[in-house]
Amino acid sequence: MSQANFGVVGMAVMGKNLALNVESRGYTVAIFNRTTAKAEEVIAEHPDKNLVLTKTVEEFVNAIEKPRRIMLMVQAGPATDATIKSLLPHLDKGDILIDGGNTHFPDTMRRNAELADSGINFIGTGVSGGEKGALLGPSIMPGGQKEAYDLIAPIFEQISGKAPQDGKPCVAYMGPNGAGHYVKMVHNGIEYGDMQLIAESYDLLKRVIGLDNAEIQAIFEEWNEGELDSYLIEITKEVLKRQDDEGEGFIVDKILDKAGNKGTGKWTSQSALDLGVPLPLITESVFARFISTYKDERVKASAILSGPEVKFDGDKKEVIEKIRQALYFSKIMSYAQGFAQLRKASEDFDWDLPYATIAQIWRAGCIIRAEFLQNITDAFNKNAALENLLLDDYFIDITKRYQEAVRDVVSLAVQAGIPVPTFTSAISYYDSYRSAELPANLIQAQRDYFGAHTYERKDKEGVFHYDWYTED
Amino acid sequence: MSQANFGVVGMAVMGKNLALNVESRGYTVAIFNRTTAKAEEVIAEHPDKNLVLTKTVEEFVNAIEKPRRIMLMVQAGPATDATIKSLLPHLDKGDILIDGGNTHFPDTMRRNAELADSGINFIGTGVSGGEKGALLGPSIMPGGQKEAYDLIAPIFEQISGKAPQDGKPCVAYMGPNGAGHYVKMVHNGIEYGDMQLIAESYDLLKRVIGLDNAEIQAIFEEWNEGELDSYLIEITKEVLKRQDDEGEGFIVDKILDKAGNKGTGKWTSQSALDLGVPLPLITESVFARFISTYKDERVKASAILSGPEVKFDGDKKEVIEKIRQALYFSKIMSYAQGFAQLRKASEDFDWDLPYATIAQIWRAGCIIRAEFLQNITDAFNKNAALENLLLDDYFIDITKRYQEAVRDVVSLAVQAGIPVPTFTSAISYYDSYRSAELPANLIQAQRDYFGAHTYERKDKEGVFHYDWYTED
Repeated sequence: MSQANFGVVGMAVMGKNLALNVESRGYTVAIFNRTTAKAEEVIAEHPDKNLVLTKTVEEFVNAIEKPRRIMLMVQAGPATDATIKSLLPHLDKGDILIDGGNTHFPDTMRRNAELADSGINFIGTGVSGGEKGALLGPSIMPGGQKEAYDLIAPIFEQISGKAPQDGKPCVAYMGPNGAGHYVKMVHNGIEYGDMQLIAESYDLLKRVIGLDNAEIQAIFEEWNEGELDSYLIEITKEVLKRQDDEGEGFIVDKILDKAGNKGTGKWTSQSALDLGVPLPLITESVFARFISTYKDERVKASAILSGPEVKFDGDKKEVIEKIRQALYFSKIMSYAQGFAQLRKASEDFDWDLPYATIAQIWRAGCIIRAEFLQNITDAFNKNAALENLLLDDYFIDITKRYQEAVRDVVSLAVQAGIPVPTFTSAISYYDSYRSAELPANLIQAQRDYFGAHTYERKDKEGVFHYDWYTED
Repeated sequence: MSQANFGVVGMAVMGKNLALNVESRGYTVAIFNRTTAKAEEVIAEHPDKNLVLTKTVEEFVNAIEKPRRIMLMVQAGPATDATIKSLLPHLDKGDILIDGGNTHFPDTMRRNAELADSGINFIGTGVSGGEKGALLGPSIMPGGQKEAYDLIAPIFEQISGKAPQDGKPCVAYMGPNGAGHYVKMVHNGIEYGDMQLIAESYDLLKRVIGLDNAEIQAIFEEWNEGELDSYLIEITKEVLKRQDDEGEGFIVDKILDKAGNKGTGKWTSQSALDLGVPLPLITESVFARFISTYKDERVKASAILSGPEVKFDGDKKEVIEKIRQALYFSKIMSYAQGFAQLRKASEDFDWDLPYATIAQIWRAGCIIRAEFLQNITDAFNKNAALENLLLDDYFIDITKRYQEAVRDVVSLAVQAGIPVPTFTSAISYYDSYRSAELPANLIQAQRDYFGAHTYERKDKEGVFHYDWYTED
């Protein structure tokens, strides 16, 4: 009996679609689900596919050729540990477990280390692209043992998305242990930022300029043809087209303005805080989701707290173009911050992350896929040691040309009383980063004053403390 | 031989000053330090005080009357665990250990639970006020067993600072287990915000209006007489007076603009992220410190990245007043966020935090002490269930009157290219909080589109998913 080339545990939609994707490339795939009925359903739905139904963990493991390549598509957290534990007695040295869940990177680091003792390779991999991506070609960000990755690379390169620019597969080795899940986490953080920037643009078009859904839809349609060409702009223009499926009008107007989250944006911000890396834009986007959930308080406050009236009398076309430029400028700030975070994580965790390759494999398959990732790929290909994206020629030029628009849009929004937390944080970051002198000298003086925390000086080396109290 | 009434472990400056403070109220205090020489020094410096030198842990514990009240003033982290472990064999049931270090609240929760099994009470307490405060009257925020706190309350009420408004002691029971250290953590987060707001004001006065140190000093001197009256404004006006102790000119101009941090601001932001509470202002202040540390990159970027020229031709006096109003407005946003965070933490950890009392005990002794804490005390005394400070009459009135100033200052700064990350985040928070409708509906549509995350509707109850792909 011929053995399966690959195994997938967990037949929820992501696991099922990934198994079907692998199968579609000519592989036989063993599938297993704790509740067998769910695996049986998959077989029933796809009777002609080379899927091997297995009903016990032992049967599943034995169905796969060695060294085994087994992908776990179960819920991140305790379920992943439980699955690993159940598989472990049946595995052989050299087998490869691949966690494709949305796992927090410290868990992947721990599991990789724990399993290494028993000779089992552990790959933690980000998979982005949603259900459809998993089936048709996601962006895949694997981390773990390099030699183990080499054994799964042929399959992953086949199932991954392919970049429109050059057809290259959207998968590459990210680095040891938690590197893959870390890169995926930052991907998701960037996704939060992108979505909030789009939401603020939409809000300005709606509440400041006063456009209706059809007009806004047409604008996103147009924007998607230019520098902003990306999946998230594309689905925005789709969303804005759709009619309510339960009544009259546009569906977007019926959806409650309370944004949910699955925690990956939060993780990104928390890690930035641990690393000492400034990540204001993504963090503001996480907080923007939080504040949206306070709907009842907001409704109450809206009747109590005063604000300016919106009176727009500018040139619509001109301001729309400024918003477009502000969006692109702010997006650049967000990615600059995200890549700076990757850089610091790479140093601290000793990962040697391949920045150009990361941007390259995000060009297709994933949620943040965008034309503009080619510019980031190019920047890091030109200079792998680039300290910050803002120091690359392309971005120097764009920020030079677009900054006036951001400044104007921020002023307009702030004067109109429309919140633009990520737009404002983008310009603050830009202006902070290009400030040779910041007022942190005063903060250091205060800290030394009340806590004797000491300070450095501009004119000489050393650590200093001022005797503040003698002159009291 | 008469026994000591109180014990202090750890004779670094905070421990020493706290022991001296307790002694000064008529108590005999046993002191212990791992390196005896340090404790001997304290005795030698203060030969006439009722301090009992002890050289072993056993001797220390035996020197104290039962139930023992022992304060740990050692470095937060492993040193605290090691100290507890060394004391434990010598303690009796009912004894009270008090951790006065800057401990992360989850550690206090863990220690309180662990020690409860052996019948030892564990109080984790915030102590704010720096070295001078510890000696003369800090603000103290204790959490743990209520009945244990009652036994230390008489001493703590004596050693604490007293509010200038009514002479009330700046100490009160905060709640079970980690409540005290949590409140202290948020205190520190607020401190980060206050300092950054002052730094941005200083930067605007300097870089936009073009004032010199003496002029800025006079402004802070004046501000300290009004609504902004506070310790941090007070020390700012002091700092700006001082001449370099190593050469010519003002010391503030010689201090390197790289702000350090001890991690408590970071913890505050990370906890807000865990709780799902928006805390943008404090978090921007943490990131502002981080970005300040990238001095080399900033200097490099300042020569490469373009920005507007600062051309100020406004009315100086008018803009100075606007900056004052913007500072006060933004400070209100920061405290509103901090108290909202306390509220959510209190719910999630089942602490029943006393919000009015927290504001009350921050009125003196601590770093953020300020006139304006009386307004917060009053607000929560009027309505203990107040959802957000912004919904209290005093704050409704102030924000109504001052918002125009913030909007103008933000526009001015953004147009001038001077970063004001906390000012901008303050107005974003205000405008978000008072928005009955936010663009989070679009974010929910996007999430449902790419990840089938579902959404709620404005017009009816339930959880919905739109069939986005059929019209593709």
